[in-house]
Amino acid sequence: MIEVGIVGGTGYTGVELLRLLAQHPQVRLRAITSRKEAGMPVADMYPSLRGHVDLKFVTPDEAQLNQCNVVFFATPHGVAMAQARELVSAGVKVIDLAADFRLQDVAEFEQWYGLPHACPDLLAEAVYGLPELNREAIKRARIIGNPGCYPTSVQLGFAPLLRAGLIEPTHLIANCASGVSGAGRKAEVHALLAEAADNFKAYGVKGHRHGPEINQQLRTIAGDASVNCLFVPHLLPIIRGIHSTLYARLNSAGQAADLQAVFEAAYRGERFVDVLPAGSAPETRSVRASNNVRIAVHKPQPDTVMVLVVEDNLTKGASGQAVQCMNLMCGLDESLGLTHVPVLP
Amino acid sequence: MIEVGIVGGTGYTGVELLRLLAQHPQVRLRAITSRKEAGMPVADMYPSLRGHVDLKFVTPDEAQLNQCNVVFFATPHGVAMAQARELVSAGVKVIDLAADFRLQDVAEFEQWYGLPHACPDLLAEAVYGLPELNREAIKRARIIGNPGCYPTSVQLGFAPLLRAGLIEPTHLIANCASGVSGAGRKAEVHALLAEAADNFKAYGVKGHRHGPEINQQLRTIAGDASVNCLFVPHLLPIIRGIHSTLYARLNSAGQAADLQAVFEAAYRGERFVDVLPAGSAPETRSVRASNNVRIAVHKPQPDTVMVLVVEDNLTKGASGQAVQCMNLMCGLDESLGLTHVPVLP
Amino acid sequence: MIEVGIVGGTGYTGVELLRLLAQHPQVRLRAITSRKEAGMPVADMYPSLRGHVDLKFVTPDEAQLNQCNVVFFATPHGVAMAQARELVSAGVKVIDLAADFRLQDVAEFEQWYGLPHACPDLLAEAVYGLPELNREAIKRARIIGNPGCYPTSVQLGFAPLLRAGLIEPTHLIANCASGVSGAGRKAEVHALLAEAADNFKAYGVKGHRHGPEINQQLRTIAGDASVNCLFVPHLLPIIRGIHSTLYARLNSAGQAADLQAVFEAAYRGERFVDVLPAGSAPETRSVRASNNVRIAVHKPQPDTVMVLVVEDNLTKGASGQAVQCMNLMCGLDESLGLTHVPVLP
Amino acid sequence: MIEVGIVGGTGYTGVELLRLLAQHPQVRLRAITSRKEAGMPVADMYPSLRGHVDLKFVTPDEAQLNQCNVVFFATPHGVAMAQARELVSAGVKVIDLAADFRLQDVAEFEQWYGLPHACPDLLAEAVYGLPELNREAIKRARIIGNPGCYPTSVQLGFAPLLRAGLIEPTHLIANCASGVSGAGRKAEVHALLAEAADNFKAYGVKGHRHGPEINQQLRTIAGDASVNCLFVPHLLPIIRGIHSTLYARLNSAGQAADLQAVFEAAYRGERFVDVLPAGSAPETRSVRASNNVRIAVHKPQPDTVMVLVVEDNLTKGASGQAVQCMNLMCGLDESLGLTHVPVLP
Repeated sequence: MIEVGIVGGTGYTGVELLRLLAQHPQVRLRAITSRKEAGMPVADMYPSLRGHVDLKFVTPDEAQLNQCNVVFFATPHGVAMAQARELVSAGVKVIDLAADFRLQDVAEFEQWYGLPHACPDLLAEAVYGLPELNREAIKRARIIGNPGCYPTSVQLGFAPLLRAGLIEPTHLIANCASGVSGAGRKAEVHALLAEAADNFKAYGVKGHRHGPEINQQLRTIAGDASVNCLFVPHLLPIIRGIHSTLYARLNSAGQAADLQAVFEAAYRGERFVDVLPAGSAPETRSVRASNNVRIAVHKPQPDTVMVLVVEDNLTKGASGQAVQCMNLMCGLDESLGLTHVPVLP
Repeated sequence: MIEVGIVGGTGYTGVELLRLLAQHPQVRLRAITSRKEAGMPVADMYPSLRGHVDLKFVTPDEAQLNQCNVVFFATPHGVAMAQARELVSAGVKVIDLAADFRLQDVAEFEQWYGLPHACPDLLAEAVYGLPELNREAIKRARIIGNPGCYPTSVQLGFAPLLRAGLIEPTHLIANCASGVSGAGRKAEVHALLAEAADNFKAYGVKGHRHGPEINQQLRTIAGDASVNCLFVPHLLPIIRGIHSTLYARLNSAGQAADLQAVFEAAYRGERFVDVLPAGSAPETRSVRASNNVRIAVHKPQPDTVMVLVVEDNLTKGASGQAVQCMNLMCGLDESLGLTHVPVLP
Repeated sequence: MIEVGIVGGTGYTGVELLRLLAQHPQVRLRAITSRKEAGMPVADMYPSLRGHVDLKFVTPDEAQLNQCNVVFFATPHGVAMAQARELVSAGVKVIDLAADFRLQDVAEFEQWYGLPHACPDLLAEAVYGLPELNREAIKRARIIGNPGCYPTSVQLGFAPLLRAGLIEPTHLIANCASGVSGAGRKAEVHALLAEAADNFKAYGVKGHRHGPEINQQLRTIAGDASVNCLFVPHLLPIIRGIHSTLYARLNSAGQAADLQAVFEAAYRGERFVDVLPAGSAPETRSVRASNNVRIAVHKPQPDTVMVLVVEDNLTKGASGQAVQCMNLMCGLDESLGLTHVPVLP
Repeated sequence: MIEVGIVGGTGYTGVELLRLLAQHPQVRLRAITSRKEAGMPVADMYPSLRGHVDLKFVTPDEAQLNQCNVVFFATPHGVAMAQARELVSAGVKVIDLAADFRLQDVAEFEQWYGLPHACPDLLAEAVYGLPELNREAIKRARIIGNPGCYPTSVQLGFAPLLRAGLIEPTHLIANCASGVSGAGRKAEVHALLAEAADNFKAYGVKGHRHGPEINQQLRTIAGDASVNCLFVPHLLPIIRGIHSTLYARLNSAGQAADLQAVFEAAYRGERFVDVLPAGSAPETRSVRASNNVRIAVHKPQPDTVMVLVVEDNLTKGASGQAVQCMNLMCGLDESLGLTHVPVLP
């Protein structure tokens, strides 16, 4: 059994981690920390966990996290980088669901997150935790920067095209929409039901933190520093789910290619990436509460490709992907504990 | 033209007041105060008001509220009672949308709202602003305690039965459900879309502030101190709307009565109370964004009456009712500015 | 492995059955029938099942259902009773998720469902499939009438009180609310999002088919033909979930009783019924996509008891309960394949 | 007073027309037809209209529509073109909310709508009813093809750029999302709450009827047959509202231009088009139940323009625009009866 600790499990990625780990056949939940809620049974905060999780929140001091095999950080940005060194030194594998280990460019991190980076050396060795694109490195990693929710869907949608060199790299468009849980379990007016329900809008129009992450990764995937993607997030009045509508212009190779075959080949054998039949339009509910991504590729004009991608932002976009990384890091079957059938309707 | 001031217009009852007053043919909006937002154009907070409301929020000092004819308090509990005396002395009519002037029993007020009452003498003269039950007193009032949203629907549903002496008064049940806007525009976790959507629950099960208000008023209506109503609120994943399902046992007079006729007679001529045909079930959307109440009365068992009532909690349950009171206090047609057709779908 | 067939799996109870059975460790899905969709892969209709269910819909003739161990009917009322005799004769256990085997009184069945009953003799031996109240009979049953969604929650809420003789039996009230999936996957105007969202209403106010089922069962539970419950359903703008708010008057024994202790004793050891701590209010999302029921009991007045019950109408209210019955009938652990953690948020 | 008839008022554009016309100070509703519902009071179908609309549905024969000044067709495609000639001959102005008079190319109409066009000569004289782009022609028109909901928002967003020649015309992208009421009040499974709520998807990915309408109009606006727009609609789990996110590449003139100033100049004096301050992101609720459009223009990259547009699909996207056309055709103030404040929250 893998001994697991969670730092900061009071938010949505935390409760999703708990949901997945409580049903994982090879995990023993050892401790979950929250300074603020220390002493409270986890199931008092989340009645859905009654009968499944018996732990109480404890303070970091009580948690003895250095005796875990794996520690997840489901915390605000800045927490994991402050604690990672000690854990890694103790031989603990660290998976950060926040952004501390995503952006390799320290200056960019500091610009977007407003914090000095606490451990650039650890950042340099950290591995970007998107298994379908980075599996071997994840297996050997000590520290995982778990991808952002939007970047996961954008990368999986553009990767087959970029790797095959089928699109003009400089003017990609990622028109994305996310459910409100992506904003976390924070008391903020804009996320109230009376504000966000029966409503739709773009946001972050002056720049969103997932923009630099997307560009860093697409450039890495393509091996081409000229890749540039315009990322525009929108807020959906749903709880879970991300939908990305991706646009690019096909170069001459792309115009000649069988795009459906390209995608099917790219993800053949992938357990969690489902390339839909030609002509499809995936819907977010088809992956609700699961670690699946579904993708459809279209050529609406001879020189244009459109890719539609759906994921559950809390599962494949956050906690499910983190568990997938854990499985790889610990030598388990990658899909262990992650094969739940999506909940529909 | 009536010169109107609003104290504290940044919440949902505030923006609803602004929506109604901006379209009212006999109102000039003179000032709207918010210490926190002073200087900000109202339409910057609420883009729906762009082109309709040109005011900026001002501090109370700048507002010169004593030069208004009517001042509405769309504030937290406790604000109106602190400012009412000065305004009333200056001849300004005061309408409080909070609870400061609803509960006539000072001790009860202090118990439920946790504040000493600042002006018991003004409380004693304040009039409960439910026009269909209290019209003549409202016309002569200087201070209105505008009814709570739930109590409005419960009173209008039980009043015909209590006045006609048709039900056993001691075990009334008011099973009510409200949209989330009833909780106000406050950043609170339980009201987040990701918490409240796709969900339903009872709340306030240990006692809700509208309970004593309901009992005070039902006793007054019945002229019977033995009236007792069990009030159970539930939280609906909708923005606007209250639905009350009311139960009582019919006494022998009630069992013999034509309840449909009783209700139709009780509300004949009322502009805002619509008694539906026998066998109906009103839906909240049928009154959305309007000052209407729709009521259906049923006798599901020979000795049981069930009354179904819907209202928009922000309009007839708050700001629309306040405007209705203003019209009465100012000698205008009671329905002026309040005849909008409900928005459906 | 248990060989399972499903008749009519295109509706919501069908896809929920498929979700549960595809993950059940002791089940092999053998066939699923739909005359209308014969030949279509199940996963084409429900993309959530891609990778989990490889079956195609087949015609009843192709299905060879008599070679199954268990056949579920997820069909409209009237289908199961027409096919049950042949299956039972072949030694197949039958579980009907519709109403054909719920009402023991044939005349009542015919009145409410508008059909003559095809096999009163089988009806007489059919067992009402609510395991917490009827476990031993279910184990020995050949035919299960799977309970209606509302009746499940109402029975589990009233049963401890009726069995202990703590309430006046003649004026029970069940004020219930259900998500829209309870109406099935039928193209009907009233269930459109543009009709049912941002809306709430009572329905079936002239009588609902679950009313006689509730009364039949409460009378059986109490062993008292005088039990009478007023059942009032409401339509919630959510997908899944039932919330029942139950009221009864306590008799003198009830007024003296420790109701919390009564409920805790009644459901001690039950895997799927969770009695919440005193003072709680369960929310529907706390059981979303799970087979759990959560119950809170309150005494808001000295002579009144209020019970709050939540369930997922598609799981414990339909398909999960059916699987629970299957487990019992087949000698498996009752909770096998049903221990999913609820999906929250 | 203008005498108005409505053909086919049972759908959502019909009830929205009724809501607007019932409050219009210069309109007398004379007749509303529905073969299917003839004899039923309109307010029985739409309780929101109780007390506002006293008409019953009548058969076309009873309606005497040729005695109206204006007749609106809120019907399926194909109805208006069958009846328009007789009405126009009788001097009645015709406004069709369906597609019969939108596409000037008869072959294109027949391809997309699957019907032969009944009156190509009337089509040739019909005017496209988008007042902000076509005001003078509307004033003189006898027949209006009222714009589609999506095309209204796309045209208003691209028009200032196309007219000023600031963008490359061949690869425009219109990434749009609409509330479910856009699908009409038809009993279809995909529009059920249990299907469409808590969900998001693209649709019409193989081609949508509004695509050719958008291209026809953008070409006309630009005076350039090379204009080509990729139109991708998505289905939002909201009742009302369209949000369009538009992308284009700026040519050298566009890169040098002050785009904010271009838009402000383009819509100066327009009562219903609100250009938001630089940096804004409009939300659909800010125009709910109103005839307003709000637009924000962004330059996220030096050579890329992004325009965000919101409208209420039933009001400015359908019935409000139709009333706006009626006002112009009848010599009334263009905004008469259309100045409602949007309903927020």
